Amino acid sequence: MTAPTIELNADAGESFGRWTLGDDEALFRYITTANIACGYHAGDPATMRAALIRARTAGVAAGAHPGYPDLLGFGRRALPSTDADVVDYILYQVGALAGIAATEDVTLTHVKPHGALMGRICRSPELATAVARSLQSVLPGVPLMFAPTAAMRAVTAEGLPVIPENAADLEFDQDGVNIVEPVPRAKDPEAVADRALDMARGSVRTVDGAVIPMPVRSVCVHGDRPNAVAIAAAVRRRLESAGFVLSACNSSAHKQAP
Amino acid sequence: MTAPTIELNADAGESFGRWTLGDDEALFRYITTANIACGYHAGDPATMRAALIRARTAGVAAGAHPGYPDLLGFGRRALPSTDADVVDYILYQVGALAGIAATEDVTLTHVKPHGALMGRICRSPELATAVARSLQSVLPGVPLMFAPTAAMRAVTAEGLPVIPENAADLEFDQDGVNIVEPVPRAKDPEAVADRALDMARGSVRTVDGAVIPMPVRSVCVHGDRPNAVAIAAAVRRRLESAGFVLSACNSSAHKQAP
Amino acid sequence: MTAPTIELNADAGESFGRWTLGDDEALFRYITTANIACGYHAGDPATMRAALIRARTAGVAAGAHPGYPDLLGFGRRALPSTDADVVDYILYQVGALAGIAATEDVTLTHVKPHGALMGRICRSPELATAVARSLQSVLPGVPLMFAPTAAMRAVTAEGLPVIPENAADLEFDQDGVNIVEPVPRAKDPEAVADRALDMARGSVRTVDGAVIPMPVRSVCVHGDRPNAVAIAAAVRRRLESAGFVLSACNSSAHKQAP
Amino acid sequence: MTAPTIELNADAGESFGRWTLGDDEALFRYITTANIACGYHAGDPATMRAALIRARTAGVAAGAHPGYPDLLGFGRRALPSTDADVVDYILYQVGALAGIAATEDVTLTHVKPHGALMGRICRSPELATAVARSLQSVLPGVPLMFAPTAAMRAVTAEGLPVIPENAADLEFDQDGVNIVEPVPRAKDPEAVADRALDMARGSVRTVDGAVIPMPVRSVCVHGDRPNAVAIAAAVRRRLESAGFVLSACNSSAHKQAP
Repeated sequence: MTAPTIELNADAGESFGRWTLGDDEALFRYITTANIACGYHAGDPATMRAALIRARTAGVAAGAHPGYPDLLGFGRRALPSTDADVVDYILYQVGALAGIAATEDVTLTHVKPHGALMGRICRSPELATAVARSLQSVLPGVPLMFAPTAAMRAVTAEGLPVIPENAADLEFDQDGVNIVEPVPRAKDPEAVADRALDMARGSVRTVDGAVIPMPVRSVCVHGDRPNAVAIAAAVRRRLESAGFVLSACNSSAHKQAP
Repeated sequence: MTAPTIELNADAGESFGRWTLGDDEALFRYITTANIACGYHAGDPATMRAALIRARTAGVAAGAHPGYPDLLGFGRRALPSTDADVVDYILYQVGALAGIAATEDVTLTHVKPHGALMGRICRSPELATAVARSLQSVLPGVPLMFAPTAAMRAVTAEGLPVIPENAADLEFDQDGVNIVEPVPRAKDPEAVADRALDMARGSVRTVDGAVIPMPVRSVCVHGDRPNAVAIAAAVRRRLESAGFVLSACNSSAHKQAP
Repeated sequence: MTAPTIELNADAGESFGRWTLGDDEALFRYITTANIACGYHAGDPATMRAALIRARTAGVAAGAHPGYPDLLGFGRRALPSTDADVVDYILYQVGALAGIAATEDVTLTHVKPHGALMGRICRSPELATAVARSLQSVLPGVPLMFAPTAAMRAVTAEGLPVIPENAADLEFDQDGVNIVEPVPRAKDPEAVADRALDMARGSVRTVDGAVIPMPVRSVCVHGDRPNAVAIAAAVRRRLESAGFVLSACNSSAHKQAP
Repeated sequence: MTAPTIELNADAGESFGRWTLGDDEALFRYITTANIACGYHAGDPATMRAALIRARTAGVAAGAHPGYPDLLGFGRRALPSTDADVVDYILYQVGALAGIAATEDVTLTHVKPHGALMGRICRSPELATAVARSLQSVLPGVPLMFAPTAAMRAVTAEGLPVIPENAADLEFDQDGVNIVEPVPRAKDPEAVADRALDMARGSVRTVDGAVIPMPVRSVCVHGDRPNAVAIAAAVRRRLESAGFVLSACNSSAHKQAP
């Protein structure tokens, strides 16, 4: 009998120029998968390269984490834009990261939208499908990582690859939509670990106390939370104690340098 | 006996959001090859896609035109940065354009640095080699287009692909270095055509009146010159009258949509 | 009996770096009042100075035209932000323009919000009042120019100075709200002049054909419309033919260089 | 007999959006004077307002700290630009901060250029004079704070106000020019305090061991150094132990809220 597997992902590479955010070095000891910012909401070419090298060194799967073009708002503001604009914002950033990754012999494993862009994609089957389809031209076979929603069912129905995921460090409303904080605050690592385990087993408790399905294959902890490293450590410990093997959903795509 | 060939390239996609620069539609009737801005000195995702579609429709070879990250200075200011930074700025932009191009079934044919970044690469054999080598990881076989210089000889000595080019619409100093204008002004199309023909034949007249070798395979006219279209038309006419066949150096890489 | 007066305003200084938008030089022959972009949606320090000098030379009243921080979207996208953020965005830009204006001996005559920021202020009495009040700390006595709305009545009730205005080159819905175009197109100058005259007389015809009150003291033509100069000329001609004297509402604040 | 006075200044408000840099709250317990970033190299409207409030609350004099428009390079890259551009970059930022300060009843006490912009002004008597003169139009009587150099002598000769200052936490070359670090690292607080005391007494030891005049009235510690607070505390302690009274050079301009 095979042990169940689960992926543990976190946003990474979210520094910018002189400003540092998150402790990727420490975080990468616990997670399986890094979502690397691509310059629109955070990240810059040097930061992106550093994150890719760090991921390769730590054996962490590396994917793209594109956001809205809004450094000031860190991609957490819903920028009015057409679906076509959103597709192009994502392709631009995914391509940019892939360009740098190619010189580090890192193959990108997934694409996870960031912040307000993630929220929009989760709410729109049309947009989610357009994004997932366009990604196949740039990175064939690479899945779009987002929440298990009607939008995801639409993408799956088209035969396009996805990784269902959600954030273990956020609360959920009665519709199963996570409640975004303007700025992440420190949280109790064990409470997050509780929720992560629930999610790994396919459900989540909402703010009303109801237990609803949440069929994810990947759980997220936010790398810019002040105690992100302690949270990631607690989540990993809890999942392993419960018998889960932590591994990236698409780790096969992650080439190690020879 | 085969007719001699020459490439005619121009910068394109240099609009940004609400602002339009150049008349790509008209220009593409005369040039063989477009260097498409990638968002750092000009261009944005929607503009990049429009330029790629226009190039494909017009049968014009499409390459990347990366610049310094300086919208305000249009990439014409030499931004102090390390060689490593420059390589990453270029990979980021080339990857970004390639990401959008992949969804339009356009294969990028070349990479031509823009403005002050071009000047820097022409002056540094080490940087030129580093850039040309890193490009092979992202776009195998795709040449770096820049001026025939000691830097280019260094790149060629490493077996890396190049396209020697220079601008027909600029003056040249006694060392064969073109004299950059802060903002391009209208110029006499026939005078530019004269110089283009000289360059197609392998030489150029400097501001001192000396004739020096300029062994290019591609000549450039700047798309943001007010009368760029008239200049491109005059250059094309002159080159064809003199028996040259105008074609992109790397047109084979340019796939048409099926 | 005194002739009735009306102000004719237009956005100006909306170039950015290498990119030119609008023909301020020509436009300033017809308008009384320029709203100068301040760097967030358009404009840069050199462009702002040039617009201020041009306004002074042409005897045109110069005010600030602050927008959302979104160059890519030209301030025409509603950026989610708090009221406090909006107040600070405006103070930042107004102060910046005033800083440059001080060295040109130009006193700013008004502040007119741009694009999506204008729309938001017209819809919120609280925000309109907060903006108008905060402006009094920076530029005492200087009015906030926006549409005659419930928001404006709230500002006026607080004893804060305003200039009621609206755009003569836009259509109006049944609620008297102008219908913004994503990108302004050329329009029939005489049709705009018809509407300008109606507005100068205190009413406007909606898209439904109803005539509703529109008690403005200033009418606007958009400087980035392709035929903006022809429109401004036609509007001026029509207003003057109908007996209006064109003059800036707050022209007294506009000092001429000694 | 009056105790000698000295000013202790630090850069502040150098966060940007989601990114925090420096601990202004703690730093303001030790310094007399804050140089507040104005949005070009760091800072944004909300951060600027927060820094102004913090300065007022702590009784710290608040001035402007304008830099080159280069968020990615944190204003530490020498951006090629004309003197006229530099003047406008500074006026724009000073005006922007003054605009927000006016609503907090804070009067700006000085202007200190940042990073590469500071270096350039220290090397150019013409530019330093042009900047200092233009400031008088915006903030009459407000001094330009920079290093005691030939450029400063030129400004003083014009009768324009200055505050001679230099950094106690940097090394000095044989010409008395401080040696800028790309990114500030932690330093021994007592060693910095040694140098601060030397400088308060009018001299500094160069990297060659020579002691040269350094007639400053203000010493700086960089707020983005990892142990900036410990350094500021040590410097203050040392200066006070040696009998200096710490006070802002232009504290009279700093109004407290009534």
